[in-house]
Amino acid sequence: MMMVLLAGVLGLVGALVGTRVAIALLVRKGYGQYIRDDGPVEHLKKKGTPTMGGLAIIAAVLIAYFGAHLIFLRPPTASGLLLLGLFTGLGFVGFLDDWIKISRARSLGLNSRAKLALQAIIGIAFAWAVFQFPDQRSVTPASQAVSFLRDIAWLALPLPLAMIWVIFIIAALSNGVNLSDGLDGLATGLSTMVFAAYAIVNVWQFNQWCSRLDSAGPQCYVARDPIDLAAISFALAGACFGFLWWNASPAKIFMGDSGSLALGGAVAGLAIMTRTELLVVILGGMFVIITLSVMLQVGFFKLTGGKRLFKMAPLHHHFEMKGWSEQTVVVRFWIVCGIFIAAGLGVFYSEWVARLP
Amino acid sequence: MMMVLLAGVLGLVGALVGTRVAIALLVRKGYGQYIRDDGPVEHLKKKGTPTMGGLAIIAAVLIAYFGAHLIFLRPPTASGLLLLGLFTGLGFVGFLDDWIKISRARSLGLNSRAKLALQAIIGIAFAWAVFQFPDQRSVTPASQAVSFLRDIAWLALPLPLAMIWVIFIIAALSNGVNLSDGLDGLATGLSTMVFAAYAIVNVWQFNQWCSRLDSAGPQCYVARDPIDLAAISFALAGACFGFLWWNASPAKIFMGDSGSLALGGAVAGLAIMTRTELLVVILGGMFVIITLSVMLQVGFFKLTGGKRLFKMAPLHHHFEMKGWSEQTVVVRFWIVCGIFIAAGLGVFYSEWVARLP
Repeated sequence: MMMVLLAGVLGLVGALVGTRVAIALLVRKGYGQYIRDDGPVEHLKKKGTPTMGGLAIIAAVLIAYFGAHLIFLRPPTASGLLLLGLFTGLGFVGFLDDWIKISRARSLGLNSRAKLALQAIIGIAFAWAVFQFPDQRSVTPASQAVSFLRDIAWLALPLPLAMIWVIFIIAALSNGVNLSDGLDGLATGLSTMVFAAYAIVNVWQFNQWCSRLDSAGPQCYVARDPIDLAAISFALAGACFGFLWWNASPAKIFMGDSGSLALGGAVAGLAIMTRTELLVVILGGMFVIITLSVMLQVGFFKLTGGKRLFKMAPLHHHFEMKGWSEQTVVVRFWIVCGIFIAAGLGVFYSEWVARLP
Repeated sequence: MMMVLLAGVLGLVGALVGTRVAIALLVRKGYGQYIRDDGPVEHLKKKGTPTMGGLAIIAAVLIAYFGAHLIFLRPPTASGLLLLGLFTGLGFVGFLDDWIKISRARSLGLNSRAKLALQAIIGIAFAWAVFQFPDQRSVTPASQAVSFLRDIAWLALPLPLAMIWVIFIIAALSNGVNLSDGLDGLATGLSTMVFAAYAIVNVWQFNQWCSRLDSAGPQCYVARDPIDLAAISFALAGACFGFLWWNASPAKIFMGDSGSLALGGAVAGLAIMTRTELLVVILGGMFVIITLSVMLQVGFFKLTGGKRLFKMAPLHHHFEMKGWSEQTVVVRFWIVCGIFIAAGLGVFYSEWVARLP
């Protein structure tokens, strides 16, 4: 437990200091964000704010994880390394994208086919590896069953389907966080809350771990390395929180795709390894809603031959166009996210209570 | 557990709707906040925003508590009623203060001696009652020992001293929340987080309750009605969260003393009844820091015969004077509050882990 808390502290401090350094560095080099021409007009003033802040988050999380393990002389676990691999790998794809945007001075970045190919490679590698590495009780980092609050036994999939399911979750969530990254502090705040929720889920799963209790009852949880995942959740929550210090309105830096793809990947990895793949629809409900708003907008536009459902997608721009101030949208989206998380954790805990003998 | 969640939902919805109604009502009657003349100049534009929003919070919490109990046909408990009494009583003092400010059109309100006398009466009544009402196991709502993560056995006080200690906690926290209520969404956001933390503490104390487990181990918690206190914590967190929807920058309404005194009283009551009186210094660390900033400023001013430690007290105005935007101060204070809460809950849970046999 001490290691978990230390990881959180290191993530927080690392991101607070690291982001400060990154801002100074990026501003000196003149690397600023290019703003999409078709976005809200008020956003044009954001031109020049440095981006790629996600690199500071990634660095902080890696330092936090390996630092905490070094200090407590504990070896890393398969689950921990896989999660960090997914997180860093997707962050690297995002970084390439950010980098090309900056160096070619355009808002579009990596060509979409190359980006998708890279994401697919990382997703497939993760989806394969996550079903390997059994521990002494032959529990693997992920299970082949679709899960809600635990594995759903009758939804156990054959390996190829399970891999596709895992890849789908990763794609959906990394896109979800990516789409929600459009207002100062929005994606960062939402991510902080979701990782804090997963920190609680992981600590609770460790507390009620089937591999740990001598008398594991019907309410215990199957997972491979809950305490190590808790350490990463704390590190992620701490790092996002530290980054928010600089990223909140008026933002001094943006996370860029380096941040949003990595964070989305981390949420997906946590959902998969904690066996809460459908619960993440509630916990990360804001990401889901923002993604749906884009899909509905595009679908409606095509279906009606040119009509729009929202004034602008993703959803947060819709409310901006309706006259809400940027900060109002951000705080209200945070509030709704908090409600989702309270509901999600409430369901998660209630199911445990209901199973008490 | 279902009742607890329902109380949270009712508190949230009640405050969301109730505050909306309150804004319409107060604006129509022309009841606006008068802004202190010696505050930051930027705050003058806030003149005319309605205040007394705390009444909506109080109403929402009362509806949530009694509504949830009615629906589940569960009687209220001594602890619950005492906490709500303290909360509502202090809210009433705050309301008188707000009301006089408005009707006399001045920023100062109730004369300070009358205010103090009313607060003292409520504090003394609570401090007396909280040591009565033993349950079957003769556990009273509060214990006479000073507590950190649980009662500290060697700090058990005689009744008069214990009463003074309780009154001191109430005075300190209701003033703390009161002082922190100076920027859009600041006190509301901090309160939401602290109540959410107490919701977790209460649920955990109920999970590990000495009066509930057949095999209560050395790590169980002594408390009178943890599940009922959890319901109130959820209702309070929900109501503050709902109020924040309207109170976040740019604020459509302020909570006023009706809100800040009541919320401070509720934090104090929760700390006292959950036996975490010193832990609240960490969980509510931002309230403590803001209070200290005022005390230090005044002390330093008197000691040095006119020098100032901060550009302006309370602390949030200091940072505004340093050029941070209001919203930056608010979000950063929220972040620091979140860190305090993570630290406080970490200590709380770690002590439980350390006691495992």
